[in-house]
Amino acid sequence: MNENKYPLISNPRDPRFLTLRSLQTHQGRSHTGLYIIEGIRHLARAIEHNAPIESLFVDPSVLSNPFGQKLVRRLRKRAIPGIRLSHQLYRDLTLASEPQGVGAILRQKWLSVDDFRTERNSLWLAVESIESPGNLGTIIRTAEAAGVTGVFILNPDCDPYDPATVRATMGSLFSQKLVKCSPPEFRDWARHSGAAIVSSSPEGLMNYKGLRYRFPAVLVIGSEKRGLSEQLLEAADFVVRIPMRGGCDSINAAVACGVILFDMASQRLDHSSS
Amino acid sequence: MNENKYPLISNPRDPRFLTLRSLQTHQGRSHTGLYIIEGIRHLARAIEHNAPIESLFVDPSVLSNPFGQKLVRRLRKRAIPGIRLSHQLYRDLTLASEPQGVGAILRQKWLSVDDFRTERNSLWLAVESIESPGNLGTIIRTAEAAGVTGVFILNPDCDPYDPATVRATMGSLFSQKLVKCSPPEFRDWARHSGAAIVSSSPEGLMNYKGLRYRFPAVLVIGSEKRGLSEQLLEAADFVVRIPMRGGCDSINAAVACGVILFDMASQRLDHSSS
Repeated sequence: MNENKYPLISNPRDPRFLTLRSLQTHQGRSHTGLYIIEGIRHLARAIEHNAPIESLFVDPSVLSNPFGQKLVRRLRKRAIPGIRLSHQLYRDLTLASEPQGVGAILRQKWLSVDDFRTERNSLWLAVESIESPGNLGTIIRTAEAAGVTGVFILNPDCDPYDPATVRATMGSLFSQKLVKCSPPEFRDWARHSGAAIVSSSPEGLMNYKGLRYRFPAVLVIGSEKRGLSEQLLEAADFVVRIPMRGGCDSINAAVACGVILFDMASQRLDHSSS
Repeated sequence: MNENKYPLISNPRDPRFLTLRSLQTHQGRSHTGLYIIEGIRHLARAIEHNAPIESLFVDPSVLSNPFGQKLVRRLRKRAIPGIRLSHQLYRDLTLASEPQGVGAILRQKWLSVDDFRTERNSLWLAVESIESPGNLGTIIRTAEAAGVTGVFILNPDCDPYDPATVRATMGSLFSQKLVKCSPPEFRDWARHSGAAIVSSSPEGLMNYKGLRYRFPAVLVIGSEKRGLSEQLLEAADFVVRIPMRGGCDSINAAVACGVILFDMASQRLDHSSS
């Protein structure tokens, strides 16, 4: 395998391994603006979407998949630097239950609020604060599938580049446009761009189904436990709820996001065809 | 605390501790027909729904919440047996990142297919094979919130009483009616009860939104990776898909289930009010 030409690292104090380790922390990621992806599917989608790959790490003893090997060769030809990790170090690093032996360091991609131009019929998502990294990843994947143009992250602690989040996006992170901004900046964006702010809350007075949305529109969702902050509830043009049956007082945040987003998306398609 | 009267166990080879351990395995659960719940919220909902609690286990050094203590006292008064676990044994057992120091052994509750009587307007869910226990739990919680009357489990390996599944149901397991049966038994049930079988598949020819469902109806969902088996696709009256935008080829199974179920549920409400 060509990737055998990458230097082999087996010392856990090697600075290149320590860099990888540090990118598993929020602090490490925000200091460097980098993040880690893992697995063949993610690597393939990163290449497909021209995501900025800085370097590779492989465990050749595990990377037996021919397609995975081909991706690594292709990146080596493009002079992407890389390292080989000893089996032990790779195991220490990976989150995968069945690691595929390949991962990469990528540069985070954040747009500024000014880059978020609304088209007449566009749909957007804003996330105030999702606690579970897996939930956040599932939400980003759902947004992509529903045709959302971009995702606002309204809380600096909410990190879409957390390894567990990246995993749960199943590769849709690379094609999604992300902006980090404060709730007031978000409100100003919505006002200037004419986007309707639709907030989701168990306390909403309107059933999400009863509403005829106007577009552009942005759905805002809050934390699993605490819901939306007062300032985002107040900024909303509409506060909608999902009616609950049985003894349930809530559903999973990613499921709730999907239920409302896909309903909005289908209304949007109705509009564009009329 | 009254629960100090429960015997204290600190030996990991004590048969009562080994029983708890065995219930973390699929084999242990299916041999005994029992399962484990953990945490105050789950215990409270189990009591509320008269779920059959066989015994309690507590870690008094952690159980500081007054409401949790009250629940334990109440169950002791009802002569529910229990044990105290040493802090170390409780930690070895728990799946919670922040354990609350209380859990219980419950008897599984399965209905037979004959108990599943369809009412004119009822909505049902059938799960062929969900690999992730957390996803299965989120799906059961979603079904409860959407007003599903009962859930069919069509694959013996799919275990709603897995600890990670129980956790993700957030307590909605106790009020949900469950049946385990084979796909042919399920098909017969649907035929005899006049329920429309709506299967969800990325290969479906119909957009789930375009369909005017007839009730009673049962939504069938398959595995995250492999989708539905041929026999369940063939048994379907309708095969629906969720249209995907962006580069997405799929969404999370629990999100997909929620998107379709809540759409069906809202049509059902329209029917009943007309």
